[in-house]
Amino acid sequence: MASRIYLDWNATTPLRLEARAAMIAAMDVVGNPSSVHAEGRAAKALIERARGQVAAALGAEGADIVFVGSATEGAALACAGRDLHCADIEHDAVTSWCNADLAVDEYGQVSVPDPKQATLQIANSETGVMQDLPQGLAVSDLTQAFGKIPLAFNWLGCDAGLVSAHKLGGPKGVGAVALRQGIDLKSQIKGGGQEMGRRAGTENIIGIAGFGAAAEAAARDLANGVWEEIGQFRNILERALSAQAKDTIFVGKEVTRLPNTLCLIAPGWKGETQVMQMDLAGFAISAGSACSSGKVRASRVLKAMGYDEALAASAIRISIGPGVTEDMVLRFADAWTKQYNRHRARHA
Amino acid sequence: MASRIYLDWNATTPLRLEARAAMIAAMDVVGNPSSVHAEGRAAKALIERARGQVAAALGAEGADIVFVGSATEGAALACAGRDLHCADIEHDAVTSWCNADLAVDEYGQVSVPDPKQATLQIANSETGVMQDLPQGLAVSDLTQAFGKIPLAFNWLGCDAGLVSAHKLGGPKGVGAVALRQGIDLKSQIKGGGQEMGRRAGTENIIGIAGFGAAAEAAARDLANGVWEEIGQFRNILERALSAQAKDTIFVGKEVTRLPNTLCLIAPGWKGETQVMQMDLAGFAISAGSACSSGKVRASRVLKAMGYDEALAASAIRISIGPGVTEDMVLRFADAWTKQYNRHRARHA
Repeated sequence: MASRIYLDWNATTPLRLEARAAMIAAMDVVGNPSSVHAEGRAAKALIERARGQVAAALGAEGADIVFVGSATEGAALACAGRDLHCADIEHDAVTSWCNADLAVDEYGQVSVPDPKQATLQIANSETGVMQDLPQGLAVSDLTQAFGKIPLAFNWLGCDAGLVSAHKLGGPKGVGAVALRQGIDLKSQIKGGGQEMGRRAGTENIIGIAGFGAAAEAAARDLANGVWEEIGQFRNILERALSAQAKDTIFVGKEVTRLPNTLCLIAPGWKGETQVMQMDLAGFAISAGSACSSGKVRASRVLKAMGYDEALAASAIRISIGPGVTEDMVLRFADAWTKQYNRHRARHA
Repeated sequence: MASRIYLDWNATTPLRLEARAAMIAAMDVVGNPSSVHAEGRAAKALIERARGQVAAALGAEGADIVFVGSATEGAALACAGRDLHCADIEHDAVTSWCNADLAVDEYGQVSVPDPKQATLQIANSETGVMQDLPQGLAVSDLTQAFGKIPLAFNWLGCDAGLVSAHKLGGPKGVGAVALRQGIDLKSQIKGGGQEMGRRAGTENIIGIAGFGAAAEAAARDLANGVWEEIGQFRNILERALSAQAKDTIFVGKEVTRLPNTLCLIAPGWKGETQVMQMDLAGFAISAGSACSSGKVRASRVLKAMGYDEALAASAIRISIGPGVTEDMVLRFADAWTKQYNRHRARHA
């Protein structure tokens, strides 16, 4: 697949070289972090180093970082059994545990009357639309923003934040919950003292080491302006597409979005079809969230923003990241436009 | 730590070369297994390959293998909310969800009046004592046996089996629940269709690939007689220790044990002290389960077998695996005997 172009970074990212190196190094660590002997202590030290790296990258120094198996597990840990409210633009991992009854406007902005009893994402995975988080929020899903925009958990004013390694160049299968000082959580996986009693089970040392290294590298990229360039490429792509396809709707263009995300609706052309045609042409993009395996349905996020069923089913997401070039996005624009014109010709 | 000798294989094992290679190869797979494009399908194929490897090694062809983040998570998935009964020799991950009221005899054997409502481990992590599993058992913790003795899940007659990658040379942070055909489980981590809806969250692809490769390699070792040799070394160690320390009790010697496990009680000499003195002498062993981080207390398992508090607090476990040599176990016997004699002299 050397000639393919991967434009689905909000679904998952390639593993960063720094994460790869840290993971390979961690493979030589023999001990169980719960063991008291030297091998155990070495394994424990690796986890604590990664905890510090994630905290620093997240601006969460002094907060507790609880490593879990995914942001989805983190959502269960932070949200289950608390009767929290959220909007219907949240990830399924959040809506599964919350009352999805908060109002969403046409730009994707959510109203939060009672932050203490609410969870609100900082950025949407499908549209990139960002929220102003109210102070005192119970939980915020930071997954899509961590590593893409400057973020300081300690200043966000929320009690708990959810993050995932594989959205910023770390491995799949590792996430974390950041907890403001003084906030506690009831463990859901019991039977061991790991993670300060908040998540039992022998730790995913290799994955956690990769998460730490990826978070550190992502923070460095961010400081070096890498995401400003990514934002320029996204805008170049958006202009190229809008110049060719006049009836296309660019979702969230009016408000603040993640720099790397482009969600478009091509009325009458099903998102799933677009994804498959682009896949055959050598490009990986997505229609809605990748997390609901195999389901073909209209985007719940877009419907919550007021788009009708037909429009919500005609959306795609292009999401880019470090290493994606201007040439790549323009090649995508060409390939997509060609298919778009064919589609228009067939349905004229 | 090149000169150290690791004899704590029941706590965790060194990563097998086959697992290492599979994990490094998996690092190049970019996609999210839930994505429909080529990158996603390649990631999905990797998981399905590992699923087949684990099923084959476990003798569980046709059963469902549900990948989870640890055997501890597997225990929660298989046991929570079912009002199951177990004995107090089970791992904390199991006793956390069950009524620990089944009778245990002095040899560590458990009576199971109602298998349908019970969970019973196949082998104990601290003593190595094995059980004859009754037919129709609801859940069995197979973690310590998988890879060490021939095992055919399809013939065990239990509905669900728990296994862990890092006990047989795979990475830490991956486990699985094997489910007999027709048996279902209610997911505990929700918000995605992964693992047939039984465990939401983007999969730990790299870890899962390592689990598959490790399981396959472990099955090959087993077929090649590696564990018979390991059993001989354990017996050599046991004879060497018993020749020197006459008052030592070898727990479970009267019944069938795992070939690699030696649990001994040196009356009056605290297990934690033995572990620390052996650590300083260059050997990694353990006192009871490694999973209850930092707790110093008498072994619950040994107390359930009828040993008093003092004896149960004076136990250590030596557990070995592939690559441990006769020379290594004899060096341990020498080092331990030296400390044992000192202890006796101080307390004479």
